[in-house]
Amino acid sequence: MSPRLRHLTTLENLPRETIERLLDRAEALRDACAHGTRKLNVLAGRTVLNLFFEPSTRTRTSFELAARRLGADVINFDIGFSSTSKGEELFDTLHTLEAMHLDAIIVRHKHSGTPDELVHHAMSGVSVINAGDGNRAHPTQGLLDALTIRQHRPDFENLTVVICGDIKHSRVARSDIHAFSALGVKRIRLCGPATLMPAVEEFPHCQHYDDFDAAIEGADAVITLRLQKERMASTDLPDEAAYFTRYGLDQRRLALAAKGCLVMHPGPINRGIEIATEVADGAQSRILEQVGNGVFVRMAVLNEVLAR
Amino acid sequence: MSPRLRHLTTLENLPRETIERLLDRAEALRDACAHGTRKLNVLAGRTVLNLFFEPSTRTRTSFELAARRLGADVINFDIGFSSTSKGEELFDTLHTLEAMHLDAIIVRHKHSGTPDELVHHAMSGVSVINAGDGNRAHPTQGLLDALTIRQHRPDFENLTVVICGDIKHSRVARSDIHAFSALGVKRIRLCGPATLMPAVEEFPHCQHYDDFDAAIEGADAVITLRLQKERMASTDLPDEAAYFTRYGLDQRRLALAAKGCLVMHPGPINRGIEIATEVADGAQSRILEQVGNGVFVRMAVLNEVLAR
Amino acid sequence: MSPRLRHLTTLENLPRETIERLLDRAEALRDACAHGTRKLNVLAGRTVLNLFFEPSTRTRTSFELAARRLGADVINFDIGFSSTSKGEELFDTLHTLEAMHLDAIIVRHKHSGTPDELVHHAMSGVSVINAGDGNRAHPTQGLLDALTIRQHRPDFENLTVVICGDIKHSRVARSDIHAFSALGVKRIRLCGPATLMPAVEEFPHCQHYDDFDAAIEGADAVITLRLQKERMASTDLPDEAAYFTRYGLDQRRLALAAKGCLVMHPGPINRGIEIATEVADGAQSRILEQVGNGVFVRMAVLNEVLAR
Repeated sequence: MSPRLRHLTTLENLPRETIERLLDRAEALRDACAHGTRKLNVLAGRTVLNLFFEPSTRTRTSFELAARRLGADVINFDIGFSSTSKGEELFDTLHTLEAMHLDAIIVRHKHSGTPDELVHHAMSGVSVINAGDGNRAHPTQGLLDALTIRQHRPDFENLTVVICGDIKHSRVARSDIHAFSALGVKRIRLCGPATLMPAVEEFPHCQHYDDFDAAIEGADAVITLRLQKERMASTDLPDEAAYFTRYGLDQRRLALAAKGCLVMHPGPINRGIEIATEVADGAQSRILEQVGNGVFVRMAVLNEVLAR
Repeated sequence: MSPRLRHLTTLENLPRETIERLLDRAEALRDACAHGTRKLNVLAGRTVLNLFFEPSTRTRTSFELAARRLGADVINFDIGFSSTSKGEELFDTLHTLEAMHLDAIIVRHKHSGTPDELVHHAMSGVSVINAGDGNRAHPTQGLLDALTIRQHRPDFENLTVVICGDIKHSRVARSDIHAFSALGVKRIRLCGPATLMPAVEEFPHCQHYDDFDAAIEGADAVITLRLQKERMASTDLPDEAAYFTRYGLDQRRLALAAKGCLVMHPGPINRGIEIATEVADGAQSRILEQVGNGVFVRMAVLNEVLAR
Repeated sequence: MSPRLRHLTTLENLPRETIERLLDRAEALRDACAHGTRKLNVLAGRTVLNLFFEPSTRTRTSFELAARRLGADVINFDIGFSSTSKGEELFDTLHTLEAMHLDAIIVRHKHSGTPDELVHHAMSGVSVINAGDGNRAHPTQGLLDALTIRQHRPDFENLTVVICGDIKHSRVARSDIHAFSALGVKRIRLCGPATLMPAVEEFPHCQHYDDFDAAIEGADAVITLRLQKERMASTDLPDEAAYFTRYGLDQRRLALAAKGCLVMHPGPINRGIEIATEVADGAQSRILEQVGNGVFVRMAVLNEVLAR
């Protein structure tokens, strides 16, 4: 059995077995919830702290719910988001929190690598969970996306998955690629404007597309990414309407995919920019399932790193 | 028996029986608390979320206390108050929260009707409780005011109640009128500057007054409303002192009311504007009883909508 | 036995016996925690509210953890920090909170004396705990500093303790002096730039120093205070480097102290201003022990004021 995780900062290089264990546990929690279990007690007496240097009410709330449903206490450590806490100042904060006997720190930070720096500098048994760092990783998002796909298309080896949008700056895309690759997906197609695509060397096993129509053909799942509006300027597209024409997921494009292709988005969605309203709200949309799975995946991760 | 409420967005058109059931339950909770019960367990495992698009620490805290004393978990979803979340964006937030398996959403929003829109768009069994929407309704305030009056003057049919101030823009006044009317109060007198009075057609069964001395004569309860200072400009009154002279509740005016007339205010009070300090702090003031009743009424409402 | 405290606003004039009882209880809680006890239930059903008019995430979090580990519910009452709530407005807030049946209010305010004003105006059995008021008192900091010293140097009568920095404006220094004096410390040395020193009359039993080398000679514990950078201007020191040269604690100076001298700081530290990095992170540093003791001391205080 792969060793128990003490931290979760990235999915990169995680064994398939570990990822599958987390997905299995998330599924078991989902089943328990469906049968009426609202709250478990496995983390009673443990304290989890949200250390968000970037605001994200949705993700913070998902982690808070996950921790509470396992019986843990949750502290929201409200640092000013204007603070660019790093270096010694950040580590002093870490050590202060450790001295208060916290069990886990859930961190979001705009600088890639901050969660690993916390792991490296930690002096106690505290667990660090990455809730998104820079462009680098958002591992619980990668897990929840994998769980959502597995629920409907468990045969990963034979899947074609498309990720479309600003992949270059997307920690979601990176964690998705790591999760899907580890689970055996052979055809991962990346699509977006040239200036928003990662270097080919970064993901040599993925196929790069500029044409969304070509990318989506026969796909089993398509993940559209949220466009940060300030990124528009770096493309050669004149406006959001032009972006939607080239990279938006509408009904016509979805019809090019395999029958029943899963429509996914990490949220919050920009309707009419990266996804059409009728697709976001349509029968193939798994967007709200993703949100629901997010809580179960985070419960699984907290349980993994904190269980005695 | 009137059917159990699943949501509470307004008191308008609620049956008297439903309102009385909520008041009876609030009273039972108050009695239990007086006998030492600090916390119940009836909502253990349920999660309640505060979704406040307008800041209101007092009301949010009252709901948070109410939910916790019933054993529920409470999440404060800290949306930026600058956000004018509405339409699709608001419903996407709603659906995201529903996907996280929340049991109740307590919403405050500056737009009248937002809580009903949430009810209309909800896709799960989530309960929506209105904590104040625009000028329209603040149903738990209406209930707590009714409870406060009932405690001292249970004979609603024979009461004279005065509401004084900016009634036109007051969700408190509207919910009070709905509650008192349903409970059988026959003499509801509304008083305020002409530009801050509602249209006569809105409450044809209420008596309209411009002269506070005339309105308060023989009254059993008087509710003074907080003056939003920016409203002053729309009156023909030169300043706050002039407002106080015409519409402030002082000892002289209170002496015109019935003996033991209840003095009420939804808080926070503006001393020397709508109420004199000696009246706010005087023997007839029920202002702090209102605050205490607020917690019990909110417990009763949460219990009503969430009990299995 | 000294009477049980109902409030804690200052350590000034507290009997030695009371302080020792609190330290003993904090130590017992620390021992229980070291043996695996994560959460007690002694304050189940009680509600503690953080009323912070100055932001302090660290102190607020320490109190929140302390209260939760005793089983209490904690409400963070998020008043805007721009508000200069005082006088009637402050007392109306107090009375509103009391009407909601809170058990304890933990208050931080920039005006010295605010916690005592709350005690004076309270109308219920609510307990008030000072989390720092102006320049006056920060009693739980005084207790945690005393606990940290006692752990290593229990023989208070024979200790030499140095406090260095902006003592004039420091509530930490004042509460430290009160705690150490009550516990029998005979040699308390105060050191700092002339403009940042208290009047000699305020602490006639303390020795005043301008020369840190002289002050630290033979000391058993040295507490360096955080320099509020805006205070620099009132000194005759040209910049932070000059401050460090005169009043910073570095290895050379620490070598002048007694062997094993405890290095303490209330945090957060300014490295290279009041303390050198190698000293802050060195073997003699007790800074993180102070943080850990902070939680246990606050548990002891909450237990003292709230136990039935």
